[in-house]
Amino acid sequence: MIDRAEIQKQLAQAAEAVRKTNPLAGSITNAATMNFVANAQLAVGGSAAMVYLAEEAEFLAHAGGAFYVNMGTLLPVHEESIPRAAHILSDAGKPWVLDPVGIGIGSLRTTVLRELKACKPSIIRGNASEIIALAGLWNLEGGGDSSRVRGVDSTDAVSEALEAALSLATWTGGAVAVSGEVDLVACTSTVVLSRGGSTLMEKITGSGCSLGGVAAVYATSASPFIAALAATNAYNVAGRRAGQRTISPGSFQVAFLDELYTATPSDIANNSFDFLEA
Amino acid sequence: MIDRAEIQKQLAQAAEAVRKTNPLAGSITNAATMNFVANAQLAVGGSAAMVYLAEEAEFLAHAGGAFYVNMGTLLPVHEESIPRAAHILSDAGKPWVLDPVGIGIGSLRTTVLRELKACKPSIIRGNASEIIALAGLWNLEGGGDSSRVRGVDSTDAVSEALEAALSLATWTGGAVAVSGEVDLVACTSTVVLSRGGSTLMEKITGSGCSLGGVAAVYATSASPFIAALAATNAYNVAGRRAGQRTISPGSFQVAFLDELYTATPSDIANNSFDFLEA
Amino acid sequence: MIDRAEIQKQLAQAAEAVRKTNPLAGSITNAATMNFVANAQLAVGGSAAMVYLAEEAEFLAHAGGAFYVNMGTLLPVHEESIPRAAHILSDAGKPWVLDPVGIGIGSLRTTVLRELKACKPSIIRGNASEIIALAGLWNLEGGGDSSRVRGVDSTDAVSEALEAALSLATWTGGAVAVSGEVDLVACTSTVVLSRGGSTLMEKITGSGCSLGGVAAVYATSASPFIAALAATNAYNVAGRRAGQRTISPGSFQVAFLDELYTATPSDIANNSFDFLEA
Repeated sequence: MIDRAEIQKQLAQAAEAVRKTNPLAGSITNAATMNFVANAQLAVGGSAAMVYLAEEAEFLAHAGGAFYVNMGTLLPVHEESIPRAAHILSDAGKPWVLDPVGIGIGSLRTTVLRELKACKPSIIRGNASEIIALAGLWNLEGGGDSSRVRGVDSTDAVSEALEAALSLATWTGGAVAVSGEVDLVACTSTVVLSRGGSTLMEKITGSGCSLGGVAAVYATSASPFIAALAATNAYNVAGRRAGQRTISPGSFQVAFLDELYTATPSDIANNSFDFLEA
Repeated sequence: MIDRAEIQKQLAQAAEAVRKTNPLAGSITNAATMNFVANAQLAVGGSAAMVYLAEEAEFLAHAGGAFYVNMGTLLPVHEESIPRAAHILSDAGKPWVLDPVGIGIGSLRTTVLRELKACKPSIIRGNASEIIALAGLWNLEGGGDSSRVRGVDSTDAVSEALEAALSLATWTGGAVAVSGEVDLVACTSTVVLSRGGSTLMEKITGSGCSLGGVAAVYATSASPFIAALAATNAYNVAGRRAGQRTISPGSFQVAFLDELYTATPSDIANNSFDFLEA
Repeated sequence: MIDRAEIQKQLAQAAEAVRKTNPLAGSITNAATMNFVANAQLAVGGSAAMVYLAEEAEFLAHAGGAFYVNMGTLLPVHEESIPRAAHILSDAGKPWVLDPVGIGIGSLRTTVLRELKACKPSIIRGNASEIIALAGLWNLEGGGDSSRVRGVDSTDAVSEALEAALSLATWTGGAVAVSGEVDLVACTSTVVLSRGGSTLMEKITGSGCSLGGVAAVYATSASPFIAALAATNAYNVAGRRAGQRTISPGSFQVAFLDELYTATPSDIANNSFDFLEA
């Protein structure tokens, strides 16, 4: 377990490195929020490229420093492209982020998510219900069934996902980020709660998806745990500040992207987080 | 025919219920405006989930309180998924909204739209030319051919679509919402004109699509006629207010989402509407 | 070679005509920025319609005054629809715009782009690396390989793409627009540099894609060279003004659409541009 000062140092370094090197993180991500994911990745200093086809995902898996896989709005082409990308990334030891959004909806999603277990995503990001359902699908401790996911929404509190998050992190050797009122970021040795954000984040579609995309950008330049926490902290800083500028979701989304762009490495390092005694 | 006071009471109840229960309305909708549809659904208090695959549409048709089908940006997968969802919804007696956008473009759209006749959508939403063309395709009174639709734009005035709207409502037993400078909402017993909005609504893509998605959200908690009018009134309130805050489309879209979120059940109930003598 | 006064006259006429006639330009364009492309096309006065299917692209190729093909986020359906649209447009002598975004990623993109050579797009738009790579793929002077494209980003300066742009323009008989810090617009007889914009344009996804869509709108009402320059000048005016209103990308995108809508034909004609001695 690393201490607060070391975490903060690494968070600032990751944010700094991304701004300096403009790293590419390719994505297979859903059509509903693809634009927002790309804009969030650009806002923190990364470069974005979205694809559907297996061969193109393979290209970007090789070309980028990390990769983002989001399971929303599946098409038939994803049956091939998502596993192909995941296997390549896993074989190459390259960081990648999985967002199991929509888990429980349809057999293709279930089949693909099951196959991804072996590919051990460096970072898994979801709401509490999705994290519990993924642990369940992968037969890990703390898992439950997907009936607790309502469409794309969580019916569980973040704290209820702790065991599932830890068992997923133990399986992958990476990190798990659970989004909620307070966010939980876990790896096998360390669990923190990150605070901030705004209730308006639930009123704009894609706040979770885009956090996953930003985590992939940070994963080009940091460990999975630091990358997941950097993204979570950045979202909590930007969400809190945007929520101070407006009370409505249209202008909140605009303000949020502004604040994500404006947040400094020091802001991201110093966002409020606490260690959870495991 | 119900009177104004009763309509207003039911409009307020629908808007109130949606804010309280955060109902899920799944969608098959076009890629160009999917993000805006979801954000509009969230803004009025609903929950959104977008899918392409037949099996996933089936899942959401069962899981949600209503469903939205928008015919834009068709992919091969829609040949199966749209009819499948529509048949399930129809068989289950669950409300669903059809937006026949792009009617007349391509044979797949024509084939699917023809098949949807038997599924009797609870609410049909379109511009005047689309409504006339759909009535024509379904061989109903007041119908015309699709040559009057120019791409996705109307070449007819709303008033010209009255007969088509009434015959569609008679066929489905539900409601029809015709978008234009003044909007028409009809069921077999009642026809009203709803006023408000802004000319800038034509300058942002997806204002019609997202109205359909919002109507689906309201349809979880009200009759088709009330749901269609609640969505139309909400759009006229939000559009009018947003149009008072800005004269340009970029900031109009932001202000529109803000005002959609801010509009109260009472605002929605009290937006200007008149009965049309049929 | 036409002189400055004549160019400015034609630029103003094109912008004026588009505002008056609201011309339709259909698109096959990528999912990541489809919404922004449509909104930009509406902002300058055009009408937008996006499709995936070959038969629908064929319909819009016939129905619209011009067409836009953007190679991003390819799906299997594009293997048929993009070449079909291009051949129809070419055979009909109707203007169309090609954005070879992502050139070098995957074999489908390469195959399709190779086939498009024979269809001679009226306007080709890309960043410097994409223009050089396309000239290379088409075996034209000044071409290079696609390894210089990093995902969707350029690693070359605009000036390095001059020879490639000229050889592409010579091949097609149309115009080439190269986006960068200073933008280059070339046809066989004239090369100009257009100035303005904002560094924030690189921080929002789709600024290039949407410029291509706007060029297609202008191409309904002007020569390829004038259409390409009108779009480029409009973007430089709107980008510069938006950059004076904000320093962050969320609000920049909003302000940019506002300014694109507000820019007058005279603004577009009078944006700073210089002739390049070829």
